[in-house]
Amino acid sequence: MKPGTKWTNGVGVAAFCLLLSMRSAGQADHPTNLMPMPKALVFASGQLALTPQFAISVTSYDDARLDAAVLRTMERLRMKTGLELVRQVGHGIGALSIAVDGAGGAVQGVDEDESYSLDVSNSGAVLRAKTVVGAMRGLETAQQLVEPAGDHYALPFVSITDSPRFPWRGLMLDCGRHFEPIPVIKRTLDGMAAVKLNVFHWHLTEDQGFRIESKLYPKLTAMGSDGLYYTQAQAAEVVAYARALGIRVVPEFEMPGHSTAWLVAYPELASARAPKGIRREFGVSDYALDPTREETYEFVRRFLGEMTTIFPDAYVHIGGDETVSPEWKSDPRILAFMQQHRLKDPDALQAYFNQRVLKILTALHKHMVGWDEILNPALPKDVVIQSWRGEESLQKGAQQGYQGILSAGYYLDGMRSAEEHYAVDPLPADAKLTEAQRRLVLGGEICMWAEQIDERSVDSRLWPRSAVIAERFWSPANVTDVMEMNRRMRATSVELEGLGLQQMEHEDAALRELIGSRHIDALKVFASAIEPVSFGERYEQQKTSQLTVLDRFVDAVAPDPPSRYAFERLTASFLKAPNAKDAEELRSMYAELIKAAPGAQRTIASSPLLTDVLGRAKQMPALAQTAIDALSFVSAGTKAPAGWKVQQMALIAEAKKPGGIVRFTFLGPLEKLVEAVQE
Amino acid sequence: MKPGTKWTNGVGVAAFCLLLSMRSAGQADHPTNLMPMPKALVFASGQLALTPQFAISVTSYDDARLDAAVLRTMERLRMKTGLELVRQVGHGIGALSIAVDGAGGAVQGVDEDESYSLDVSNSGAVLRAKTVVGAMRGLETAQQLVEPAGDHYALPFVSITDSPRFPWRGLMLDCGRHFEPIPVIKRTLDGMAAVKLNVFHWHLTEDQGFRIESKLYPKLTAMGSDGLYYTQAQAAEVVAYARALGIRVVPEFEMPGHSTAWLVAYPELASARAPKGIRREFGVSDYALDPTREETYEFVRRFLGEMTTIFPDAYVHIGGDETVSPEWKSDPRILAFMQQHRLKDPDALQAYFNQRVLKILTALHKHMVGWDEILNPALPKDVVIQSWRGEESLQKGAQQGYQGILSAGYYLDGMRSAEEHYAVDPLPADAKLTEAQRRLVLGGEICMWAEQIDERSVDSRLWPRSAVIAERFWSPANVTDVMEMNRRMRATSVELEGLGLQQMEHEDAALRELIGSRHIDALKVFASAIEPVSFGERYEQQKTSQLTVLDRFVDAVAPDPPSRYAFERLTASFLKAPNAKDAEELRSMYAELIKAAPGAQRTIASSPLLTDVLGRAKQMPALAQTAIDALSFVSAGTKAPAGWKVQQMALIAEAKKPGGIVRFTFLGPLEKLVEAVQE
Repeated sequence: MKPGTKWTNGVGVAAFCLLLSMRSAGQADHPTNLMPMPKALVFASGQLALTPQFAISVTSYDDARLDAAVLRTMERLRMKTGLELVRQVGHGIGALSIAVDGAGGAVQGVDEDESYSLDVSNSGAVLRAKTVVGAMRGLETAQQLVEPAGDHYALPFVSITDSPRFPWRGLMLDCGRHFEPIPVIKRTLDGMAAVKLNVFHWHLTEDQGFRIESKLYPKLTAMGSDGLYYTQAQAAEVVAYARALGIRVVPEFEMPGHSTAWLVAYPELASARAPKGIRREFGVSDYALDPTREETYEFVRRFLGEMTTIFPDAYVHIGGDETVSPEWKSDPRILAFMQQHRLKDPDALQAYFNQRVLKILTALHKHMVGWDEILNPALPKDVVIQSWRGEESLQKGAQQGYQGILSAGYYLDGMRSAEEHYAVDPLPADAKLTEAQRRLVLGGEICMWAEQIDERSVDSRLWPRSAVIAERFWSPANVTDVMEMNRRMRATSVELEGLGLQQMEHEDAALRELIGSRHIDALKVFASAIEPVSFGERYEQQKTSQLTVLDRFVDAVAPDPPSRYAFERLTASFLKAPNAKDAEELRSMYAELIKAAPGAQRTIASSPLLTDVLGRAKQMPALAQTAIDALSFVSAGTKAPAGWKVQQMALIAEAKKPGGIVRFTFLGPLEKLVEAVQE
Repeated sequence: MKPGTKWTNGVGVAAFCLLLSMRSAGQADHPTNLMPMPKALVFASGQLALTPQFAISVTSYDDARLDAAVLRTMERLRMKTGLELVRQVGHGIGALSIAVDGAGGAVQGVDEDESYSLDVSNSGAVLRAKTVVGAMRGLETAQQLVEPAGDHYALPFVSITDSPRFPWRGLMLDCGRHFEPIPVIKRTLDGMAAVKLNVFHWHLTEDQGFRIESKLYPKLTAMGSDGLYYTQAQAAEVVAYARALGIRVVPEFEMPGHSTAWLVAYPELASARAPKGIRREFGVSDYALDPTREETYEFVRRFLGEMTTIFPDAYVHIGGDETVSPEWKSDPRILAFMQQHRLKDPDALQAYFNQRVLKILTALHKHMVGWDEILNPALPKDVVIQSWRGEESLQKGAQQGYQGILSAGYYLDGMRSAEEHYAVDPLPADAKLTEAQRRLVLGGEICMWAEQIDERSVDSRLWPRSAVIAERFWSPANVTDVMEMNRRMRATSVELEGLGLQQMEHEDAALRELIGSRHIDALKVFASAIEPVSFGERYEQQKTSQLTVLDRFVDAVAPDPPSRYAFERLTASFLKAPNAKDAEELRSMYAELIKAAPGAQRTIASSPLLTDVLGRAKQMPALAQTAIDALSFVSAGTKAPAGWKVQQMALIAEAKKPGGIVRFTFLGPLEKLVEAVQE
């Protein structure tokens, strides 16, 4: 059947007429859990019931990848609805018909058309897209739309026209500092696809580990990986898995800095000094590839040539950040080279290196991506700058004509709230850029650095916050309602759990491990009002290295837990206009903390791994009591005794100090509450 | 270093002297979570603190498999203690020294020596074993012994001498009716090793699916597996993974019955009629391989020959159960064959088939294992009978000289309590067997049939109950204290979760999926007093097939949940001698159910997948109120109003009727409580 054929027949016309009436009957207030929000959606009253006969048919353009996506969708709908849906791609007219114009790129490009439209009406559901990837985006939306309807499930009548705001919507996973096994990678890709992220930026080499097999240079993993690396077959499997989900894989091979693990194996490539072993500490290393030797380029040329046989994407990330090699300022041979090539300083030397690597990549038909530091007028305009320094740096690049993607603001190891990340826009309305320059901002990338994550905690650090950033990359800039975002984020987290992601179950499981018992009730209540400190604070307090065991309380608790938002929202609402409802809800939340405190303290005291949070457990009940007292004063409009506020503020100040590598989620709202008390 | 050398030097002598004093100071009442319990253990007062310098060294017999086991142990101790233990096999004297005599079998046999001794004293810990497998068993014990000691962890001073009661301690996983992905298999093996099970019986073919790749007969999986099968490379990986853990892999290829999936691909091998497709219904199929044709044996010979290249174990399981082929009683050609070979009935025909297959296996240097039905005097004595019919059948086999393993009593799909399985002994004291016959009982196997499990629920069906059966197979017959078993089982479950098994987190995750929300608090309380009905009851009530979606409430709740035991224990204790403490504990448990009921009912009513348990949710509060009232009457020694008991018993009788494919965990104790009320 040719594209569109079906929709000129009777059914198609009927559906179209209905659509028109739907739009006029559009209900903007139909509750939806969609994340990311589509560009345009109009609900109509009515639902399309899902029955055991429900089928998805492809009415145009037969494609194995699309069929696989349909089967995945059917499988998920089976689980979601309990219906014994047939595991087949329907032929002819199904309840959901997909019309796709073509496959899209043989290798998915930055310019892949991901747009789609989805119309659900009385006569069925129709998904139209220009490419298979677009259809997959639409299938994710369709799935998220499924809602309970009495004793069955249904799709609401809706008309959606959707396309991404940015073409580059990435997630960078650092598998260098801590290795992540293949199942983690796969479920991360599943989660990415669910929220329409489309670039998996695979950080494969670091000072702390070289994670990708090279058959030309096997010593790279033999000596630089502790045995933890991806074989080429596994990497190819990941690339295929990602392609099936409409996700590009951009590999990163850090050079010339962050290369300790390379140099363990090939010390002859080092700038004079070579490391004795894999770097275990974090922070910036001072080893670097030697940019002054031809052997280095020969090595890089052969290595990257080998890697392009595994990674088909048009882009290769060469890192390029934080290169600090003292020899570049002191070694006579290197200095002589710099003089000979008129390279005035280490930056110029690195630019020279980048130019040479760029030539290698160009010969391999690849584009270069690098961190801010590669930005140098000497480079041609087809490199992509990934900005960790901030929007300003990104915009400066765009003004100079460079394409860029924003990562500053999306560092998940900062343990910031979803709300904070949500507020960061790769292309703010006030950016001083021309239209042409604005188009150079390709999008953004979430960064999951792995100093302090391992395979057990990674999901809880990635999700659900990544879903919110994904929405920032996909949805129109004016989708900014934080309360709505929060509600949808929590629902999306349950969806993601259904895909096998473990962010929701992690905390309970980790708490049980920590105490060696299933009796975690009191501890859970305590944990619910606690969140991890940022990577930086933990690094300062605990001096973590790659050898640090990541099995502390801080590793169990989730960043940005629901309690933080609940305390903030209720307190703000209460302080705006003191009322009994908010007061009671807050009081009961704080009372629960007080009630659980003795049990939590006992559990913590008898668990060696928890000794560092005993202080926090002891602070908690007094702080909660402060909140309850403050609520009473403000509610009753009575004054607190003299000195009360100073005393309480001292308690809060004490609780703000570092302790247990974790922090309370309620200190901000509590402070405001105490401030509001009259004395 | 030669075996034992170390222990003739000063340190060794000191340790030995200390051991002597330890034994005399032995404390039988040191709490321990060990499961299975060792044959002999004596605690002494004192602990060996674990420090960051803790190391495990191998003082004799250098072996790669042992080194890997040591590294695994170190990794788990790192996670357990938070200590930055070095990921190396210590050389020379470590805090824990392992002395092993040799590797054991190149292919682990039934007669593998798994004994070990473990002595922890002031001067360190010493593990001695004859084989690497024995050392691995000891390492699991050592790990389980680790206990909190103030702000650190320690090994208690102890002297253990241990060896298994039975040499064949298996777990059968049916991957035919529902496929289980490789990660599930691997974590199942991890769990098995933790509780010292040593045979993974891999049920690879069924009417509902042929799950192992044959390169000679690729149509077997191409047409008989829905694409869900293990490649030979994956199977080899599983075998290697199991060997690393000291676990044998016995593959099962069901023949001549349970072979629908074979015959879909090769209809020419069928007894006259061939199936049209993979069987979706459960129950016994009436298709069978044709035992009267030479082509069948040629096929079996080549197929088994191919399989022996993947599965090195000395045993191959040929199934052999439930063979029902009407043609064996009606087809003229088959009847003629039977007459010609003097085979008087279908049983004789199957015995003929088995003899032919046995010859094939013998030529391949393999022993045969089969279910009860293969037992036939015509077979030689080196076949092993796996008894699903019961201890009697097993003993009958032993009396005839056949080796046997017991599976009746260990069917996990019966959803029975750990206690019931614990009570089943493969070799009861009263078995009418001679010493020689007793030795023919090799052990037992847990059976996990997969009509109603999938990869999401499998862990919650397998664990922790398998740990208890593992103890029955390993520990002395007189280890039977149920209360102690229950306590240790719950602790072991947390240990198993630390290995990646998901039985503890499954219920919450599944409940979230069912309602599409994280707000499961009330539903959880309701679920805590509910357990799944048996496979048979569910089959009756729901008419499940392979196509049934396994995402109902019944799939979320755990078999044998803690509440069942708590209700039973407290009620028994209360009824023995009514007292306020038990009454109060019971009252608060039942009151919690009442409190959660309205919320649970609301959640259930708005969740299409839960509609079938709304009835149960409505029954719950009245039943709980009955319990609370009964407690009051009995506690106060007052009489209930006339007719009260009849009324309450009617409520209970109603609640015993099928509903929602689940049952309450407290009905038995509640009934006793009501009976105890005076009227």
